[in-house]
Amino acid sequence: MQALILAGGSGTRFWPLSRRRRPKQLLPLDGEESLLRETLLRLLPLVSFEQIWVATTAALAPAVHREVPEVPATQILAEPEGRNTAPAIGWAVRSMPAAARQDLIAVLPADHRVADAPAFRAALARAAEAIAEQDRVMTLGVTPHRADTGFGYLEIEESTRAGGAHRVVRFIEKPDAAKAEEYVASGRYLWNAGIFLFRGTTLLELLARHAPDLAGGLEAIAAEPARTAELYARLPATSIDYAVMEKLTDLGTIPLACGWSDLGSWEALAEALPPDAHGNAGTGERVAIEAHDNLLFAESGTIAVLGVDGLVVVRTGDTVLVLPKARSQEVRKLIAELTLRGRHDLL
Amino acid sequence: MQALILAGGSGTRFWPLSRRRRPKQLLPLDGEESLLRETLLRLLPLVSFEQIWVATTAALAPAVHREVPEVPATQILAEPEGRNTAPAIGWAVRSMPAAARQDLIAVLPADHRVADAPAFRAALARAAEAIAEQDRVMTLGVTPHRADTGFGYLEIEESTRAGGAHRVVRFIEKPDAAKAEEYVASGRYLWNAGIFLFRGTTLLELLARHAPDLAGGLEAIAAEPARTAELYARLPATSIDYAVMEKLTDLGTIPLACGWSDLGSWEALAEALPPDAHGNAGTGERVAIEAHDNLLFAESGTIAVLGVDGLVVVRTGDTVLVLPKARSQEVRKLIAELTLRGRHDLL
Repeated sequence: MQALILAGGSGTRFWPLSRRRRPKQLLPLDGEESLLRETLLRLLPLVSFEQIWVATTAALAPAVHREVPEVPATQILAEPEGRNTAPAIGWAVRSMPAAARQDLIAVLPADHRVADAPAFRAALARAAEAIAEQDRVMTLGVTPHRADTGFGYLEIEESTRAGGAHRVVRFIEKPDAAKAEEYVASGRYLWNAGIFLFRGTTLLELLARHAPDLAGGLEAIAAEPARTAELYARLPATSIDYAVMEKLTDLGTIPLACGWSDLGSWEALAEALPPDAHGNAGTGERVAIEAHDNLLFAESGTIAVLGVDGLVVVRTGDTVLVLPKARSQEVRKLIAELTLRGRHDLL
Repeated sequence: MQALILAGGSGTRFWPLSRRRRPKQLLPLDGEESLLRETLLRLLPLVSFEQIWVATTAALAPAVHREVPEVPATQILAEPEGRNTAPAIGWAVRSMPAAARQDLIAVLPADHRVADAPAFRAALARAAEAIAEQDRVMTLGVTPHRADTGFGYLEIEESTRAGGAHRVVRFIEKPDAAKAEEYVASGRYLWNAGIFLFRGTTLLELLARHAPDLAGGLEAIAAEPARTAELYARLPATSIDYAVMEKLTDLGTIPLACGWSDLGSWEALAEALPPDAHGNAGTGERVAIEAHDNLLFAESGTIAVLGVDGLVVVRTGDTVLVLPKARSQEVRKLIAELTLRGRHDLL
């Protein structure tokens, strides 16, 4: 099996910890290692470093290489620019040597958290078995434990087959709260975690059938590698879900229950970290008195709080962020303001 | 006139900005200059640097000297240890050469804020005139603008004499809220700001009469300067109010309306600093979105807040403090915890 890690993200939701040149996947958010490195280490019993490929942007490629130096440099694929997941995956698979391309390829985001790595690997192994039985694309869908409106859902067929594989009936965009409640209660829906397994040649065939513009563009790049940047910029910037997955009638899924989180915000991180007796979680040196349910994240120095509840407090070498946990997504408003002020050194 | 600045304080109420070796009076809390230096500069039109004396502790003397290098080094008086204001003032006055001791001496805390320096100097000049009319001790009492329970009050005689001087009827310890309301409504009470003016020789006579133990101890030190540390440690550690001022029947006062604050807490500082349109005040680089009535004090780096109200957020080079303004006094609880942890580097 080969693993293709998607590490091109440039999100701002973990500002001030995340910066343009140090996005989320390069941060040690929930432990000692960066999320990217954790993603690789989690796979190691299944694949060797020589079977790992990392797709990222040209700007991030040097940092990615430093973070996972065991991965051969030729397998760190620097996209000329970020153009969503369909071009990233298609180009990466098309770039692999024929032997790798004919192998099973697991596609994994570099910035998710998995608490139970053995359960994760077992699900991936079951997906591989399902493909051995019948060649198709498999996805791992996360068993939902709350009616989250922040994820896309996969509706699955009720019948359970051997190995726990289900057929995906349809992809559902982020639902409203009522729908999300209904989905979770029914037991027939999984969160779409963006984790896929396929034979590389199969994916290229599916691209040719369902996304001929993209497939044609990839062939043009393969024919004229010197024009990669120019041709890549013309590829349709669509997601792999939209380009391929939603159009499949035989997409299979293995339910995944492994303490998964996409760590989509400071609030999500707060939920993933172990709380103390007062509900405070975090990292670094922190002192909390008569304070509850806070995330106290000290990358540098000490955080001291007293008499505050439900806050996110982040301290980096140059910045402090304070906001209510429930408004974590609004950190983008602060970034917009700093951008207006021209404080690019802080972004 | 001579000025004696009391700069021996070691308070912790501005932690994490204030530290053992950098107490409040050495901090630029409300402007560019430290409170100590502001205290001196405010006096300059009335006195020259050669007429300024600074009483501090041995530990702080080098930092005080660096902060006000214009004051002759021999006039920075390092107490062997802090033993309250009566020994500090008595020893300082007794240490002055005879000419200075026979002059008027203004005693001023080094860590207060005065918005209207000309009004402050005018009150001090009026106090000097009152002493020229009749030799006695004068104090400047702050006209209260709210029923604060954090200050001592001076009850004054209703009759106003020429120059605005009043006789102080009695000293009152910090009152409860009902009493404080009554005092402020009556117009016959002032806040005790610890600012005094007297002829040095007069003060020494009053010490001999009202505090003979202290006066005897000061004479012993004068007789055997080599034993200063040993003898100083035996002086009664009382306040100048208790040792002398409360016992006087002819103590005079000039009401002071000059935007005075003792800056007794982060909350008091927040009230002294000019707020923006959303009630946020502070210093350093700060970004506040949908946030109101916060004190954002960035000694170093940037503070970014969103959706929080009524907080104190302080960022120093090594620490962040977050607490509700109204609980500013409780910063001592955090210091107690850090002391328990042995984090003396942060104290």
